[in-house]
Amino acid sequence: MTDATDGPDERTHVDDRFHVFDTTLRDGAQREGISLTVADKLTIARHLDDFGVGFIEGGWPGANPRDTEFFQRAREEIGFRHAQLVAFGATRKAGVRAEDDPQVAALLDSGAPVITLVAKSHDRHVELALRTTLDENLAMVRDTVAYLCGHGRRVFVDCEHFFDGHRANPDYALEVVRTAYEAGADVVVLCDTNGGMLPAQVGATVREVIEATGARLGIHAQDDTGCAVANTLAAVDAGATHVQCTANGYGERVGNANLFPVVAALEIKYDRRVLPHGALAEMTRISHAIAEVVNLTPSTHQPYVGVSAFAHKAGLHASAIKVDPDLYQHIDPERVGNTMRMLVSDMAGRASIELKGKELGVDLGGDRELIGRVVGRVKERELAGYTYEAADASFELLLREEAEGRARRYYRIESWRAIAEDRPDGTHANEATVKLWAKGERIVATAEGNGPVDALDRALRVALERIYPQLAALKLTDYKVRILEGSRGTGSITRVLVSTSDESGEWSTVGVAENVIAASWQALDDAYAYGLRRAGVEPRE
Amino acid sequence: MTDATDGPDERTHVDDRFHVFDTTLRDGAQREGISLTVADKLTIARHLDDFGVGFIEGGWPGANPRDTEFFQRAREEIGFRHAQLVAFGATRKAGVRAEDDPQVAALLDSGAPVITLVAKSHDRHVELALRTTLDENLAMVRDTVAYLCGHGRRVFVDCEHFFDGHRANPDYALEVVRTAYEAGADVVVLCDTNGGMLPAQVGATVREVIEATGARLGIHAQDDTGCAVANTLAAVDAGATHVQCTANGYGERVGNANLFPVVAALEIKYDRRVLPHGALAEMTRISHAIAEVVNLTPSTHQPYVGVSAFAHKAGLHASAIKVDPDLYQHIDPERVGNTMRMLVSDMAGRASIELKGKELGVDLGGDRELIGRVVGRVKERELAGYTYEAADASFELLLREEAEGRARRYYRIESWRAIAEDRPDGTHANEATVKLWAKGERIVATAEGNGPVDALDRALRVALERIYPQLAALKLTDYKVRILEGSRGTGSITRVLVSTSDESGEWSTVGVAENVIAASWQALDDAYAYGLRRAGVEPRE
Repeated sequence: MTDATDGPDERTHVDDRFHVFDTTLRDGAQREGISLTVADKLTIARHLDDFGVGFIEGGWPGANPRDTEFFQRAREEIGFRHAQLVAFGATRKAGVRAEDDPQVAALLDSGAPVITLVAKSHDRHVELALRTTLDENLAMVRDTVAYLCGHGRRVFVDCEHFFDGHRANPDYALEVVRTAYEAGADVVVLCDTNGGMLPAQVGATVREVIEATGARLGIHAQDDTGCAVANTLAAVDAGATHVQCTANGYGERVGNANLFPVVAALEIKYDRRVLPHGALAEMTRISHAIAEVVNLTPSTHQPYVGVSAFAHKAGLHASAIKVDPDLYQHIDPERVGNTMRMLVSDMAGRASIELKGKELGVDLGGDRELIGRVVGRVKERELAGYTYEAADASFELLLREEAEGRARRYYRIESWRAIAEDRPDGTHANEATVKLWAKGERIVATAEGNGPVDALDRALRVALERIYPQLAALKLTDYKVRILEGSRGTGSITRVLVSTSDESGEWSTVGVAENVIAASWQALDDAYAYGLRRAGVEPRE
Repeated sequence: MTDATDGPDERTHVDDRFHVFDTTLRDGAQREGISLTVADKLTIARHLDDFGVGFIEGGWPGANPRDTEFFQRAREEIGFRHAQLVAFGATRKAGVRAEDDPQVAALLDSGAPVITLVAKSHDRHVELALRTTLDENLAMVRDTVAYLCGHGRRVFVDCEHFFDGHRANPDYALEVVRTAYEAGADVVVLCDTNGGMLPAQVGATVREVIEATGARLGIHAQDDTGCAVANTLAAVDAGATHVQCTANGYGERVGNANLFPVVAALEIKYDRRVLPHGALAEMTRISHAIAEVVNLTPSTHQPYVGVSAFAHKAGLHASAIKVDPDLYQHIDPERVGNTMRMLVSDMAGRASIELKGKELGVDLGGDRELIGRVVGRVKERELAGYTYEAADASFELLLREEAEGRARRYYRIESWRAIAEDRPDGTHANEATVKLWAKGERIVATAEGNGPVDALDRALRVALERIYPQLAALKLTDYKVRILEGSRGTGSITRVLVSTSDESGEWSTVGVAENVIAASWQALDDAYAYGLRRAGVEPRE
């Protein structure tokens, strides 16, 4: 590491010798299920700049109004600290001069200082998809690169289908690289567009192209063989100095090379500085934040940044981790902003429960009988469909209940009812009523909401607000429903996970029942009990 | 390929020179969120045998009653066609003779013909976790292997933490391999237990160990760097002839090397026969079936077998695919039992909509105005939260509605109401009422259900059963709820996806509304309209 003298908060620029190039906003947006607004794209660009990538490919200006607007607003609204904005486009049309091609003009108009041009390098694609001659394709590459360079832009050339093309017609594929490089492209990027390559092939090809052309090379790998990260690293091993990736591996079909494991490998395993100082420790947060913006649940099992990436379940591992966490972790999770977790499950032994108790600040003091009782209740509840791995707060309530020998309840429910209705006049109604006892008093409250669960939540708050004003600070932040198949022959059941926050944190609770309303009710009940407990409120049932 | 003379349905055994070893039932079960019953394990074993893996590691007999029961029932209930059952266990305890160690006895008692022994090969783990001497650890390996071989078992030895151990103390790590091999182990498996390795390191180490020991080697890779598949292939390139994998990559922390891309690479990219004839074409089905058993949604973006693995979205790709699908696919998806899909999304251009129409049997006949109208409606609905990528049937209804110029409705809803209630006496009630018009008749029906959505579904069926008896054949098979954040400032909305089946197929529909009941109602409404249309019923609103 060369940054030992930097202050801990000072982010320094990475030099130009190695490029971390992100294409989440262009290629990543091709993923099934992703649809980005301009506002989404601006937010993601800010996260990527914050993380410290060198280049952010923002889209194809001119190809659709959204991308054109993005470039305009990004220039005006974002003060990039690390990244340069890149516009993506194609070489000029066949038979047209670069200066007369409106698509090329739109690239200049975008104002982006860097332009990535996609070029065909596979002879069959030139003939079938472009429907032009091999020579004209070379001229298209040469003219467009020279024209954009002449207008002061830095140009990278993406050779689409390079690896397949190189296998089919190596001379022509090499000629495309040479042409781009000689016309002024700074980097020629070899793309495994169909994603069919394996690391050994990628390494050998990159080596051969460097020897044959002397060009500065980049790599753009798709993940169709499950090897995109390894293919990217194999290209780096062979001499490539520019890696194109997407956040969380989003992209067409299976996806692209995932930015996070690529930069983590380079920084941690290669000991190579590719990000500003301090950025790696932000990686988990940034990965999850981008998932939120694209509205996809963060992958729990993503390397380095998944919530499961440092989660330990096996009893064997738990016992060893009590001795030394490094025995079952390849790195300290804090280096990438993640944390170690012990999982509570019916596979968990006493060691896991004890460690988990410690994590939650409940000292079980090696009480074998108590720990055994907790293990027993967890097994029994998980058999019924509960899951405590994702519901720490419900587990803590269970644990404390056993440790303290009694449930701490803030109220006692007599009954509840929720109604959802589409009326003949086209209006909707969602209404709920709760009847409960709190502080010796019987309270009946009714409320309306956006839906029956929301109405129940509001009715409960109305009923309790006088006695427990602290409830006003609690906010429902997430709500997940899963239908569990009755693999044990009991018919299907519904599991609801609710996330709730107050000013200082967030917690998750679980409910399981035959239907979504009843399961939600349970999860809400736990959420409020936990929230009141956190707030230091004494139960007064 | 050497199987050109086999009949298409005849599955032949793969020879012993290369081992596909599956450990889904042991290491895969360590994944966060997985909890397998004995029945689950038996079902998965059948799928794996069907797929044609050579070895199925079933668990650790003696370590817990579930695994002991599994081995007993697997022997009795499963007539394995391809796989051999493998029991997993540890070398004998320090200071105890192998024949006196009950854990070793349980391995013999399991009746499994093959036993995998886990052995420590990292000096630090011997000292910290086993708390014995390096010499005693070697004796433990030697004695246990010899004892089990002496009882007629085939023995594989898993060298835990081999790669880290080899880096820390290469001589000792190699000595463990040599000891195991000389004592009679058929294969010594190098395990990257903490998953921190990269392919180049794995390849170099495997090569060195083969040169130093002459042992037959296997590889067991964890995916903590996102390179488990590539690490497995790097080991094979270096001479390993035994690969340990799990279905869908399930496993501790991030997971294990994923069986499916590993065998697909070996069969397709290496042209090496590692599965029985015809098995590869079953891969997608088996991957999804195993996901069902473990009760995890199949990963949509898994290489080769994900529903998105051959799904095309970019307008650029769609136009090229109209020319030739191979231009944007690395293999024919049918080789692995998957299919190509065109995605309908607001990024889709006219080409995608036209191709999708063809896929659904709706000829849009190049009608530019009609196609433009469909593109417009899709964009507008997706902006409101709908997704047609996962709801083909709802999209087809939309498409036909535009193509035919009118909605085909089977009934007209006047109003509906659903009530969920927890009564003071502890009983529950879920009741729904629908009021609708069908065939000129006004019908009012009420029904009870497990929950409010189930009650609505039943009430609708009660109302319509006389007029549309075909509804009786429709079954709800899946139900998913997602809360969408109102990133466009409209507050949160709920999206429901419903899968419905009849005797001959399954389809998916979508509903979006402010709450789960109203969204479910829409998805049900589409599901029935689609099902009746499939059944050839004429609308008689």
